[in-house]
Amino acid sequence: MNRLSLNQWTTRNWSLPEAIDGCVRHGIEAIGIWREPLHECGLDAAVKLVAGSGLRVSSLCRGGFLTGGEPLDDNRRAIDEAAALGAPCLVMVVGGLPGVPPGLPPSPGFSRSLPGARERVAEALAELAPYAGERGVRLALEPLHPMYCADRAVISTLGQALDLALAHPAEQVGVVVDTFHVWWDPQVFEQIARAGDRIASYQVCDWLQPLPAEVLLGRGMMGDGVIDFRPLTEAVEAAGYTGDVEVEIFNAEVWATDPDEVLATMKARYRSEVLG
Amino acid sequence: MNRLSLNQWTTRNWSLPEAIDGCVRHGIEAIGIWREPLHECGLDAAVKLVAGSGLRVSSLCRGGFLTGGEPLDDNRRAIDEAAALGAPCLVMVVGGLPGVPPGLPPSPGFSRSLPGARERVAEALAELAPYAGERGVRLALEPLHPMYCADRAVISTLGQALDLALAHPAEQVGVVVDTFHVWWDPQVFEQIARAGDRIASYQVCDWLQPLPAEVLLGRGMMGDGVIDFRPLTEAVEAAGYTGDVEVEIFNAEVWATDPDEVLATMKARYRSEVLG
Repeated sequence: MNRLSLNQWTTRNWSLPEAIDGCVRHGIEAIGIWREPLHECGLDAAVKLVAGSGLRVSSLCRGGFLTGGEPLDDNRRAIDEAAALGAPCLVMVVGGLPGVPPGLPPSPGFSRSLPGARERVAEALAELAPYAGERGVRLALEPLHPMYCADRAVISTLGQALDLALAHPAEQVGVVVDTFHVWWDPQVFEQIARAGDRIASYQVCDWLQPLPAEVLLGRGMMGDGVIDFRPLTEAVEAAGYTGDVEVEIFNAEVWATDPDEVLATMKARYRSEVLG
Repeated sequence: MNRLSLNQWTTRNWSLPEAIDGCVRHGIEAIGIWREPLHECGLDAAVKLVAGSGLRVSSLCRGGFLTGGEPLDDNRRAIDEAAALGAPCLVMVVGGLPGVPPGLPPSPGFSRSLPGARERVAEALAELAPYAGERGVRLALEPLHPMYCADRAVISTLGQALDLALAHPAEQVGVVVDTFHVWWDPQVFEQIARAGDRIASYQVCDWLQPLPAEVLLGRGMMGDGVIDFRPLTEAVEAAGYTGDVEVEIFNAEVWATDPDEVLATMKARYRSEVLG
């Protein structure tokens, strides 16, 4: 239980100070922080709050969107923030096809080239990885479910994320195993084993069936959907992962619930559904 | 152009006689038939209509749903129907987790075991493959996009479908390459090459961005979405596929359009977007 971490987006109506306070009150020892509420709070204030709380920061979410525009400066800022917070990793959502904004129709002149987009990811990663490593932050490549390939992440499988990560030293680039994104993958157990010490973050939430109209919000509380968590948890453990386990839920109903109730449910479901 | 085939669901408001007539009027030489309109028409009447029209039947859609209940009898009937129509293959959508009906919440007591569901598919396939082969029909395993893993198909990638198919003689079991389902796959080109003469059907339609609320209806007219068709068409050709190319679109707007207009657009887009 002491490895359970609240990913802040699960209680997105809480500010960062409120989320830190909630974790402390509920005996949750770690938190995954998002940049938007971090900026609202201010980095220096957040660093002090975290230090005073005794919480571990399990990750900073998120960097990435490497396929369009000029992504390097903002990602360097995100790495600096992760370093300041003592977060071991910066979660990277790599971006979709150039010119296809998340959740929106493609812009005129967008690119249909997946190989081209993936090449841009590899190039940007080569720029950012040493910068991250020098600051003690690991870039954690997150394969997203293939339904987000067009607009959010051209990296869709753990195997693909690993292929990219392995081009860099282990302390610079790792991968995220997020149950929602990878549960369907016929190669998931083989790739988790292959990942070994490249696993930088393990995130859990359930796959709701049927999906809601806004597919980004199909992430449910563990036990409310169809995922069999224990074999995945056991595989991640067997691969050698000893870090925190973040619960990251994007769900309109969860967001409308009293966050204290969400934390209590999260603890109970973590115990009953996720632990091996 | 003479390999273009109308998958009947693209013009689902047409009866089978109307769809056959439409193909003839528009100079489309092949048709993919669905079982529901086939049963409305009657098998004997359909066989006569097809013979009289001179059309090729590119596939019968669909068998499958092998993971729950007692699926064998109905699949044997589907194979018989395909044989009667002279369809070279029966498209197989293998089914989701046992107890998870398509598009609906899981039933009480549903199974979360993906390995168990996949085992059921393999077992049912072993029963059906020789039966199909004896009747000159190939079972065409269709990997569905991973977003349908829970409720429609626990086979999500071309590689996985091939692993299953290769346990049987090539004339008994093949695979479907459907652009909508496989375009995102980082291994798609490698797996198409590996498939070789196992490719039993090539189906095209676009991936709409953003997806509509009902994700089953995110299949768009070629050119209306984000898929780069030519490299996929070229890979399928290079693998040796010389069969028909079915346009299969599930889309509320397309269904609300005059089917004659849909066929004209389909021919134009097939030429401008799909042909290498």
